[in-house]
Amino acid sequence: MSLSMYQASIPVFIHMMGNLSVILDKAAAYAETKKIDPSVLINARLAPDMRPLSFQVQVASDMAKGCAARLAGIDPPSFPDTESTFPELKERIAKTIAFLKSVNAAQIDGTEERDVVLKMRGQETRFKGQPYLLTYVLPNFYFHLTTAYAILRHNGLDIGKADFLGVR
Amino acid sequence: MSLSMYQASIPVFIHMMGNLSVILDKAAAYAETKKIDPSVLINARLAPDMRPLSFQVQVASDMAKGCAARLAGIDPPSFPDTESTFPELKERIAKTIAFLKSVNAAQIDGTEERDVVLKMRGQETRFKGQPYLLTYVLPNFYFHLTTAYAILRHNGLDIGKADFLGVR
Repeated sequence: MSLSMYQASIPVFIHMMGNLSVILDKAAAYAETKKIDPSVLINARLAPDMRPLSFQVQVASDMAKGCAARLAGIDPPSFPDTESTFPELKERIAKTIAFLKSVNAAQIDGTEERDVVLKMRGQETRFKGQPYLLTYVLPNFYFHLTTAYAILRHNGLDIGKADFLGVR
Repeated sequence: MSLSMYQASIPVFIHMMGNLSVILDKAAAYAETKKIDPSVLINARLAPDMRPLSFQVQVASDMAKGCAARLAGIDPPSFPDTESTFPELKERIAKTIAFLKSVNAAQIDGTEERDVVLKMRGQETRFKGQPYLLTYVLPNFYFHLTTAYAILRHNGLDIGKADFLGVR
């Protein structure tokens, strides 16, 4: 079977967001064992002008659900970015995965040329579906997933690349 | 045109490795301006048991050239992982990009079902071409690119996500 827009997006998002949820479980357990206030990890940053862990999870979610919705031509669920605990971040991931699972291959396949319009900082950016997925969504999605991983790793969480990749 | 194995890999690698090269230019200039020994940045890590910047660049290169070679059924160029300066790391990227450009779409397209065998830590892992690209190469490639970015950002380099994405 040929590579399709669906295969290159939705199952990848579901798998990687699931891995992130397991990493957050490990972070929550680490905080409990070490008597670290979970908010210390959730608000941790790699640089003062980088965003904290919670934001990295929220934007990874936004990239995945936004991509699924824009390619399918439907409205994405709106989440208010108020998560401030590990259970809330895990719930955000679970809701994102549930939405991704509700989108089927027929809605995504064949969207290589679909017009996608993003509004960012008051400006419109226009893409076709394929470059939107390959040059915008996937780099951003992995950027925020990896940054979430790196924040936790930098703060002492004992995880490895197998956790990131979901090799179990 | 339908999404193809070539489109989902080689042009993405070339674009993102080019962005990394520009980021290394900025890092080299930053080191010079701030009178930082460049090796401080090149050996910087986000955690004591994470790998340094040089390794992140080398593995991003390995993921890209290994994917191109394995899908095309040719031998990848072998680079000895001895780079220890910014010019050497940039040369590694340039050689990687040159190899990627030497591989054409006809060599990569249609490799969704190609058998790929990886030897990792003495063990063989077998993939078909499509899951090899989607669940192994791309997550690893972006993981190491983002970690390289994060190491430099954590060490004070003034770059933003536009540099990572190559939005110029």
